[in-house]
Amino acid sequence: MFVSAIAFTEGSPKVQQIVEAFSQAIETGEWAPGSKLPSVRELSETLGVSKFTLNEALDRLRGRNLLTSSQGRGYFVAMDTARAVSSTWVDLLPQDLLSVLRRPLVTVNGDLRPGSGHLPEEWLNSEAIRQAMRSAVRAPSLRIAGLGTPAGLLPLRQALQQKLHTEGLSVPVEQIITTPNTVQGLDMLMRLLARPGDTVLLDAPCYFNFHANLALHGVKVVTLERRPEGFDFTALEQLLADHRPSLYLTTSVLQNPTGHSFSPGQAFRLLQLTQQYHCHIIEDDLYGDLHPNPPPRLAALAGLDHVTYLSGFSKTLSANTRVSYVVAAPQLAANLTNMKLMSGGVTSELFEQIVYRMLSEGSYARHRKRMVQRLIEAGGRVEQWLKRCGCELSMPYEGGMFIWARLPAGVDGEQLAQEALKQGMVLAPGALFGYDPAHRDSMRFNVAHSDEPRVQQVFDALLEVAKVSPTKNAY
Amino acid sequence: MFVSAIAFTEGSPKVQQIVEAFSQAIETGEWAPGSKLPSVRELSETLGVSKFTLNEALDRLRGRNLLTSSQGRGYFVAMDTARAVSSTWVDLLPQDLLSVLRRPLVTVNGDLRPGSGHLPEEWLNSEAIRQAMRSAVRAPSLRIAGLGTPAGLLPLRQALQQKLHTEGLSVPVEQIITTPNTVQGLDMLMRLLARPGDTVLLDAPCYFNFHANLALHGVKVVTLERRPEGFDFTALEQLLADHRPSLYLTTSVLQNPTGHSFSPGQAFRLLQLTQQYHCHIIEDDLYGDLHPNPPPRLAALAGLDHVTYLSGFSKTLSANTRVSYVVAAPQLAANLTNMKLMSGGVTSELFEQIVYRMLSEGSYARHRKRMVQRLIEAGGRVEQWLKRCGCELSMPYEGGMFIWARLPAGVDGEQLAQEALKQGMVLAPGALFGYDPAHRDSMRFNVAHSDEPRVQQVFDALLEVAKVSPTKNAY
Repeated sequence: MFVSAIAFTEGSPKVQQIVEAFSQAIETGEWAPGSKLPSVRELSETLGVSKFTLNEALDRLRGRNLLTSSQGRGYFVAMDTARAVSSTWVDLLPQDLLSVLRRPLVTVNGDLRPGSGHLPEEWLNSEAIRQAMRSAVRAPSLRIAGLGTPAGLLPLRQALQQKLHTEGLSVPVEQIITTPNTVQGLDMLMRLLARPGDTVLLDAPCYFNFHANLALHGVKVVTLERRPEGFDFTALEQLLADHRPSLYLTTSVLQNPTGHSFSPGQAFRLLQLTQQYHCHIIEDDLYGDLHPNPPPRLAALAGLDHVTYLSGFSKTLSANTRVSYVVAAPQLAANLTNMKLMSGGVTSELFEQIVYRMLSEGSYARHRKRMVQRLIEAGGRVEQWLKRCGCELSMPYEGGMFIWARLPAGVDGEQLAQEALKQGMVLAPGALFGYDPAHRDSMRFNVAHSDEPRVQQVFDALLEVAKVSPTKNAY
Repeated sequence: MFVSAIAFTEGSPKVQQIVEAFSQAIETGEWAPGSKLPSVRELSETLGVSKFTLNEALDRLRGRNLLTSSQGRGYFVAMDTARAVSSTWVDLLPQDLLSVLRRPLVTVNGDLRPGSGHLPEEWLNSEAIRQAMRSAVRAPSLRIAGLGTPAGLLPLRQALQQKLHTEGLSVPVEQIITTPNTVQGLDMLMRLLARPGDTVLLDAPCYFNFHANLALHGVKVVTLERRPEGFDFTALEQLLADHRPSLYLTTSVLQNPTGHSFSPGQAFRLLQLTQQYHCHIIEDDLYGDLHPNPPPRLAALAGLDHVTYLSGFSKTLSANTRVSYVVAAPQLAANLTNMKLMSGGVTSELFEQIVYRMLSEGSYARHRKRMVQRLIEAGGRVEQWLKRCGCELSMPYEGGMFIWARLPAGVDGEQLAQEALKQGMVLAPGALFGYDPAHRDSMRFNVAHSDEPRVQQVFDALLEVAKVSPTKNAY
């Protein structure tokens, strides 16, 4: 075993840095299970730390079951190195190019945002939202002191129950639980439905935060390509049989980034197979309300014993009004309410009041109708523009916020995005949406943001440069 | 090995129920490591499930490293049963009496709430809050579409920087990160600072959600009695030496439920010892602003390499304006920002704007001054009342929201709380704040809610009944 010196940094105790370095060496298999560590004296010399510090670190590693010790014989790497939780999420910290490109998607404001995951400010009905905020703030029923109702404000949940009913999902209000946002809803569901070591199936490509969040839960991730025809169902069955995922996390309608919606037939086959292999589905329906004529949701087809449903208003009303919701089987709904209390996930009553007002007074329905129509029109124009640029769409645009297009041959999406950033334009290259090299030549376009002459001019110019000077890609 | 039938319930797949039942039997040690399971045929008969269902469950258990199998020899309980993550939080689900009593603390509204953890609605400056909300909603700078700034709204963090500076904690704004609430801030810090199997030190008694949240992280919890003299420091040193906790989570000023604040001398000794044993501190300072003359915070004394600081406005402004904040060493602050993105923890900009306005316009400072004075006056009266009732205080009331008092001999706090609930009064019996029987004879009183003739009348009457009919306690 080779123990190298550690480049200690300021800001965290040396003990912790030793623990992290040794943990990594063990978990990556760099140090073989069962192998003997050098003596404490040797180690403290190599690392330049006191024996006290070193012993402290070794004690912690024993506490994590990464080391064993035997009186008088020293320390050994534990035999069972299939640690339940690995710290893989640390790998996702923003050191890499992808993070550099991903960050502006959620932070930078500006005009040129064809890569954005949100609608432009002026597309949202901000006057109606401000109006609902004002009337919620004025209402004497608003409780300033309270934390909010653990399961969620009842009138809002009743309004959601009505909305769900029109979408074919009829459930008692007790099974509708609000969450502060959709990612946090997913995070709490994962804590309840998954255990470290479980396997979870994701679409390839998919929303990048799905990968990031799953990494927090120490689960294994398997992916399958999401295509216009849904899945290669033979491949899906093989994957279910081989990997036995306990969960499938998916966006059923207007998927991010592909814009694909499972047709009724695709959904049926998918549900049949996942039921057969006892693979529970978490259905994210964040974009469904943007579809002109949404197909039936998975939860409406197969019921809540097989599908847990998750939706919210961050894309259709405002990411600032933090109201999402989960629809789940009775016990899971009760557990989720407890999880909200235990993890700080209770939703603000002020926001619940705002969304409740917009749902019950009809302004949400009117706003939604306008948005859907406007998207359809913009999407048609953007589709034509992309084709003129030499981009290829895997399927015709059918509504919603996103078009997923293959760039002209030889153009590298990440490099294009880097160049674009220099001109203040935010793009969403395919590599952001999964670790599959197959997505590297594609790009997600937000049709609302892309339907702008200035965006198209800047993009066209960048593309011309990229076409004539084929890239030397580091990957 | 004895495998009993499982009482299957509706609402979750049988496979999952088998996995949970078997996991529990293994994790509790009911099934010994290395022992052989009955054959698949026998098991499927005992449980009344198909072999397919059973094999699916056994596969999952193998995936969790709880079972091993050997071709032709059947299934065995894995040898290494020191599983990194146990599902202990499931034990905290509300089946028990404590949960029945705990629930109304966060849900029920009503007049008689001496057990409440919040100030009464009319104590909060709701007019100033509504005013700040209105002006935030009116402001054109409010971005409806955006998610908010990952680290938190900069002007708010600058205002917090100034506030912290006056409290002796001078830090760059980059190290101040907002979180939606304090429990979620803690939850994210635990994800970053702890690993399953680590040991965490808590005060006994302490805020019940500390226990609940730590259980989510699979850490071992050790507790030490928090006393008027701080700690028994000999016992603390022994505990640090024996259990090597990597973290100590505490409320340094006006602790919930005891109302105790570490004096400068106690804080110094505590910091010295925890530094010596490399035990990092998470300092919760949710109540410090209610102290008339707060002693120095641990973070201000020992710095952010040893202490991570956590505070918020849920007790002083409104639980509905979800703004808390963490002050941390540079790398931890950066990691926390990423954790916010990955787990849905980005704070709403609307709420950040509201708190920013109240801090920068001075209305928070004025409100705080009034609250502190009003608490001192109410606390003095409640202290006298409790003494008249025959309750004993371990130390004189010195400010803040809570008095922790020992009930008259023979009175059972939980039974008293149950009786009180029947009359619409919410009490907070000692058992809620830890699992130590020593706290069973104490009770937490919210001085603002208790300074009411009606509350005192109902409590006096209940106490008289409890004194004359000593309880048969089931515990």
